[in-house]
Amino acid sequence: MPKNVAVAIAPADDPRAGDVAVAVERGGGTLVEPEAAEAIVWLGGSGQDLRTVLHDGIRWVQLASAGVEHWLNTGEIDDKRVFTSAAGAYAQSVGEHAVGFLLAAARQFPQCMQYDDWDRARGEGRPLRGATVGIIGAGGIGKEVIRLLQPFNVRIIAVTRSGRTIEGADLSISSSETFDHLDQMDYAVVAAPATSGTEALIGKKELDRLPKHAWVVNVGRGSLVDTEALVTALQDGSIEGAALDVTEPEPLPKGHVLWSMANVIITPHASNPDRDQTILSHIEANVARFAEGEELAAVVNVAAGY
Amino acid sequence: MPKNVAVAIAPADDPRAGDVAVAVERGGGTLVEPEAAEAIVWLGGSGQDLRTVLHDGIRWVQLASAGVEHWLNTGEIDDKRVFTSAAGAYAQSVGEHAVGFLLAAARQFPQCMQYDDWDRARGEGRPLRGATVGIIGAGGIGKEVIRLLQPFNVRIIAVTRSGRTIEGADLSISSSETFDHLDQMDYAVVAAPATSGTEALIGKKELDRLPKHAWVVNVGRGSLVDTEALVTALQDGSIEGAALDVTEPEPLPKGHVLWSMANVIITPHASNPDRDQTILSHIEANVARFAEGEELAAVVNVAAGY
Repeated sequence: MPKNVAVAIAPADDPRAGDVAVAVERGGGTLVEPEAAEAIVWLGGSGQDLRTVLHDGIRWVQLASAGVEHWLNTGEIDDKRVFTSAAGAYAQSVGEHAVGFLLAAARQFPQCMQYDDWDRARGEGRPLRGATVGIIGAGGIGKEVIRLLQPFNVRIIAVTRSGRTIEGADLSISSSETFDHLDQMDYAVVAAPATSGTEALIGKKELDRLPKHAWVVNVGRGSLVDTEALVTALQDGSIEGAALDVTEPEPLPKGHVLWSMANVIITPHASNPDRDQTILSHIEANVARFAEGEELAAVVNVAAGY
Repeated sequence: MPKNVAVAIAPADDPRAGDVAVAVERGGGTLVEPEAAEAIVWLGGSGQDLRTVLHDGIRWVQLASAGVEHWLNTGEIDDKRVFTSAAGAYAQSVGEHAVGFLLAAARQFPQCMQYDDWDRARGEGRPLRGATVGIIGAGGIGKEVIRLLQPFNVRIIAVTRSGRTIEGADLSISSSETFDHLDQMDYAVVAAPATSGTEALIGKKELDRLPKHAWVVNVGRGSLVDTEALVTALQDGSIEGAALDVTEPEPLPKGHVLWSMANVIITPHASNPDRDQTILSHIEANVARFAEGEELAAVVNVAAGY
């Protein structure tokens, strides 16, 4: 029988608190004030008041964001308890977005949408079928992209830190081998977490090595791609286009040159439109796991930086 | 052992004739002049000179287009021999395009691409996952769309003339039942052939019946959707958007209101970017079938009109 879990939700005035309370109770938790809690669902950002509600009795903190680089930078994630993020929870939705980007790139939707003339709109679209897609960061999102691409008959190169074999990939390589394989990638999907080791993972050198017809798809974090080098590569034609759900800086300022490029599609960090529902399901499932004494999903790994 | 097939290619001055000759020979055919042929690969359009090369010895004519409505209208398709089209040959490529349209619609790529401002671009995108997709015309293209959508966890309603069970569909209905199911369709993918029975298949009545958030995706023929009714529905908000690879009229004239609508994506009959390679494979395979005495692919059914 699952044990009873005393869970607090903070800040209590967060607009999502009511829905989260329902999720916690569905997962088998009992709602209490922070003082009496053994677990906290923290709905605020980093650098806010998390520390004011923590005490030695808190054994687990659930955060509401998928990326935790800011929390690690502020030192709010300590070693006195388990922290979980929402990593992976958004994988289904973000993965779907990435496949949409791939098809839009292959079929030149961005270019077609610039025109109001049948003949000018006629571009050089191509099938995605038969292309090689690099998944740079085959974590939750990357694996979902690979799953969704199975019927499309593409060749998949999956990149992870360790180079472990990824199901559904035609080739699994480690991040240190990425550069040597970039020239094979018709599409490079960037879906790695933002860590000190992944900053500007795609910079001038990498963009030069990609084929001239390649597209860069970024659904990870803006910082993974060197924006200045990307703009230059797009202008010089050393790659064909970019599909970006995240940018650096973010928000991308009004008037930034990327907004006006015909070979760029930008969605404003919108790859997870059902974010609110998704996080509720994630919290419910994690509370249930905690109650059962099972391993929690998306435990933050301080050493790895995500 | 396959028999030798005497095949003529006409018009001989078509720019594809050389590549088609290679395909015919790969399929086991021998190239001859039309007078000596028992089969003709006709690379011209309808209303041209096909009749001048036909004679009683010609038992099979391979046409190079997928839709044959013009040929049926001119009466060039007779009952003295078998005619085959390229129907189905383009299914893979067009199906992929349709899935790209569905994801672009769900994630509001067209709307995002109108803006140069992070906050304004922020739309009401949604997951495709969980949506209901109507496949209006589950022939070669429609079946390919269904196959590609398998991992996306959508609900599929497949429409055919007969209502036969379509593999991978959650519900298979006949065209006479379409209207009653339109209000369930978040997306209506139009992929039927153009016949007298399918003209303006999607008109005012049907557009009114679709949900207000619905998108119409047309990868079949422009004539299947009533353009005037579509424009009104898009302007009135009785549907959310349209993704069109084919239009009526086609080409869509410069200055047509559809070009300027933020909730419309148009590709200029470009859903089959590898058209030339595709038709060659189709011809090679059909020549091989003819040589083996097997049933040909894409035999034109005059009674059905495709």
